[in-house]
Amino acid sequence: MPVHSRRRGSSRGKILDLIRSTGPVSRVELSEMTGLTQATVSTSVRDLLRDGLVSETGRGESTGGKPRTTLEINPASRLGIGLHIGRDYTTYIVADLAGTVIGRLRVPGVGDAEPEPAVARMASDVDQLLTGLDVDRSAVVGIGVATPGPINRDAGAIMGAPALAHWTGFPIAATLSRATGFDCTFDNDATAAAIGEFWLGATGDYNTYASVYMGAGIGVGIVIDGTIYHGKQANVGELGHITVDAMGPTCSCGNVGCVELFAGPRSVIDAARAAVERGELEMEFTGTITTDLARIADLAVHGDATASALFTRSAEYLAAAVVSMVNLIDVQLVVLAGSAFQTVGSLYARTIAERLDERAFARAVQRVDVRMSVNGTDAAALGAATLVLQDTLSPRSLASITLA
Amino acid sequence: MPVHSRRRGSSRGKILDLIRSTGPVSRVELSEMTGLTQATVSTSVRDLLRDGLVSETGRGESTGGKPRTTLEINPASRLGIGLHIGRDYTTYIVADLAGTVIGRLRVPGVGDAEPEPAVARMASDVDQLLTGLDVDRSAVVGIGVATPGPINRDAGAIMGAPALAHWTGFPIAATLSRATGFDCTFDNDATAAAIGEFWLGATGDYNTYASVYMGAGIGVGIVIDGTIYHGKQANVGELGHITVDAMGPTCSCGNVGCVELFAGPRSVIDAARAAVERGELEMEFTGTITTDLARIADLAVHGDATASALFTRSAEYLAAAVVSMVNLIDVQLVVLAGSAFQTVGSLYARTIAERLDERAFARAVQRVDVRMSVNGTDAAALGAATLVLQDTLSPRSLASITLA
Repeated sequence: MPVHSRRRGSSRGKILDLIRSTGPVSRVELSEMTGLTQATVSTSVRDLLRDGLVSETGRGESTGGKPRTTLEINPASRLGIGLHIGRDYTTYIVADLAGTVIGRLRVPGVGDAEPEPAVARMASDVDQLLTGLDVDRSAVVGIGVATPGPINRDAGAIMGAPALAHWTGFPIAATLSRATGFDCTFDNDATAAAIGEFWLGATGDYNTYASVYMGAGIGVGIVIDGTIYHGKQANVGELGHITVDAMGPTCSCGNVGCVELFAGPRSVIDAARAAVERGELEMEFTGTITTDLARIADLAVHGDATASALFTRSAEYLAAAVVSMVNLIDVQLVVLAGSAFQTVGSLYARTIAERLDERAFARAVQRVDVRMSVNGTDAAALGAATLVLQDTLSPRSLASITLA
Repeated sequence: MPVHSRRRGSSRGKILDLIRSTGPVSRVELSEMTGLTQATVSTSVRDLLRDGLVSETGRGESTGGKPRTTLEINPASRLGIGLHIGRDYTTYIVADLAGTVIGRLRVPGVGDAEPEPAVARMASDVDQLLTGLDVDRSAVVGIGVATPGPINRDAGAIMGAPALAHWTGFPIAATLSRATGFDCTFDNDATAAAIGEFWLGATGDYNTYASVYMGAGIGVGIVIDGTIYHGKQANVGELGHITVDAMGPTCSCGNVGCVELFAGPRSVIDAARAAVERGELEMEFTGTITTDLARIADLAVHGDATASALFTRSAEYLAAAVVSMVNLIDVQLVVLAGSAFQTVGSLYARTIAERLDERAFARAVQRVDVRMSVNGTDAAALGAATLVLQDTLSPRSLASITLA
C-alpha cells in the first residue's frame, strides 16, 4: 500500500496522469486544467519531482511574463510487471510509466499443475526476467496478475474457473507477493486485455468500448467513458456465459445455453473431432486448446470447407452475444483480442460487424466499430502491467483527467 | 443552459449535492469532505445562498473555537417536472430538490396520436398541473422527458421504437420546450426509472444496480458506482432485445430471438389469445397492453393454471436474460419496476432470484439481491423529474460526492 493518504495520493495521481498524457506542461496549465489551486498543484509537483516520477524539462511558451518551466513524465522511474496466467500459456510483460514494453516472456501455461509449485515457478520466472533486463528493481511498483474468472479480487484468487477448477480459493496474489517481495494486484484477464488495448492504441479516440477476449474461454473487458468497469467483484464481462439458447444444454458454469457452448474454442474443437470421426475432416489433435484451434484455423484459411463451416457457426453465435451486449451497454467499439482470433480473426470481425449493422437496436442512431487487437496475445499481460502502473497514476481511470 | 461555467457549475453542484445528502453541515466540514480549499467552498456557498438553494440553519457542534454555522438544502427552491410518455399511459410528476413528489398526474398515453398535437396536449397538461399545485413557476428548472428507446438523446427524439414508430425523429424535447418555456432533458424510460428507484429508496445501500423496467416492452436502467450509465447515446439497457434463442424468430427490432418475443407483455397476451381460441382460457381483450396484461395477471393470481403458466414461461425467459446481464455487468441488485410487474411481480422476483442463485457465474463469490420497486408505475416519471434537478446538483452522479 502507498504510504501517502488516499486523498493526497489521488490528486497527486491525477496531476501525474495529466503530465503523462499531455506532456510538457506547466504548473499554471495544470492548475487551469484541473481547477485545483496553484498551491495544491505546486505541492503535488514537488512530491512528484522528489520521487523522480517527473522531471522539469525546458520552458513552455511565455504569455508575456517570465517563461514557465514545463514538466514531463520520467518513464523509467517506475516499472510494472504484468503476468497473464493461462492454462496453455503464461505471459510476462515489463512496462514502463509510458506504457512501453521493455521486457516480455512467454512460457507454457499452468495446465494441470498444482498452484503452490506453479506460483513458485512464476516467482522464479519474474526474477530471471528482471535479471535478464538488468533493470533497477526498486523501480518496480508491483505485479499485475490477470487470470480467467470468476475471481475474488480482494482475496487475489480464482473462484471456480472451469479451466482452472483446482486453483479455486488459492491465494495467488498473496503467495506471489511473498515469493517476490512485490505488491500484487489481481484482475480478470478480459478486463486486463481491455486496458492493454487502450495502451496499445487499438481503441483510438473511442473511450467507451468492449474488448472481447477469446483464449480458451470467452470474456469481455468493458471500458466506460475512459474508466475500467470492474463491477462489484471484478466478475464483469463473462460474455461466454450469456445465454443464447434459453432451452439449451447446461454449461459447466451452471447456466444454460451459454454462447461458449456454441462459439467457444472447445466447442469448435469438439465439432472438429466429430467431423474427423465422420470422415469429413483430416487432422490430428494435441489436446491443447490453443494448438488444436490453430490447426483447425489453418485448414479453414487454406480452403477446407468443413473447417470453415465450424468457424462460421462459431462467429454467428458469438455475433449474437455481441449484439446482445451492445444492446445492453451501448459501446462505440468492439475490439477482438486473444489467441483464438489469431488466424481467423477477420472472419469473426466481418461477421460481428455485419450482424451489428443489421441487428443492433440503435443502428439507426450510431454504427458500432469492430477492430482486431493490435497485439491480441499480449494484451492481457500488458494490461496487467499497466494496471499496477495505473495505481501509481490515477486509480481506475485510463484517460487524462478532468476534475469535473 | 445554466449561465455559470461548466467547471464552476460542477464544483458548486458537488457542494450542493453534499449539503443535500449529508446536511446540516458546516463550511469547514464541506472543505474536509471535498478536499477543496475553504476559500473555494465559501465562494460556492455564497452563490448557493444568493440563489436560495441552501439556507444557513443553526449552529453545528463546536470543536473548541467559535460555533460553526451549518447549511441545509432549501427543498422548495427548485422543482423538476418529470414526464413519462407511454403508449398506454403518460405520467407527470413534480418533485422538489429533496426528491419529494409534490404533484402527480396520470392520463391516457399517446396511442396512435400524431406527435404534434400530442405534445401540444402535454404542454397543456403541464400547465394545468402547475396551476392546480399553485407553485412558484420560476422555481421550475425544467422538464425531464422519459420515453421508450431507442432515442437520440441530443436531438430529444425517439428513433424507431417499435411501440411508437410514427414518432421517429420528431423533436419532442424542442417542441415541448417551445410550448412550455421550460428547458427539457431527454432520456430512456428505463434509465429514468433506475434513477427514480434511487430517490424512492428501493436501492438501499447498493450503488451498483440494474432496474428492469417492463411496461409494454422490457428495458433496464443501469447505475454503476452511484452513476447513471448512459452509454454513448443513451441507448443502453435494451434488455428486451438481447437474444435468448440465436436460431429463433426475427424481432421487429431487427435482431433474432429477442427475450421480448418470449417474455414481453405482448407475447403473454398473444399466448393468452391463443389459449382462448383453444378454449383453455376465458377472458375478453381490450387491445390495450397494460389492461389486457392486468386481466391475465388477475386470472393467474386467482388460481387459473393456464394464465399462471403464461407468466411462469415469461418469468423463466426474463430470468435467462437477467442472468446473462448479471454475468456481463456484475450488479449487486436487480429491481423490478413497471406496470407489468404490478400484479404478478412476486412470481417474477422469485423466479429471477432462484435462477441467479443457481446460474449466475459469480454466485460463489456474491449473491445478487432481487427486489420489487417501491412504486413501479411512477419510477420513470419521478426519475425524469429528478434528472432535471440532478443537473442542478451534480451532473450524472446520484450519490453524495467524494472528489476522489
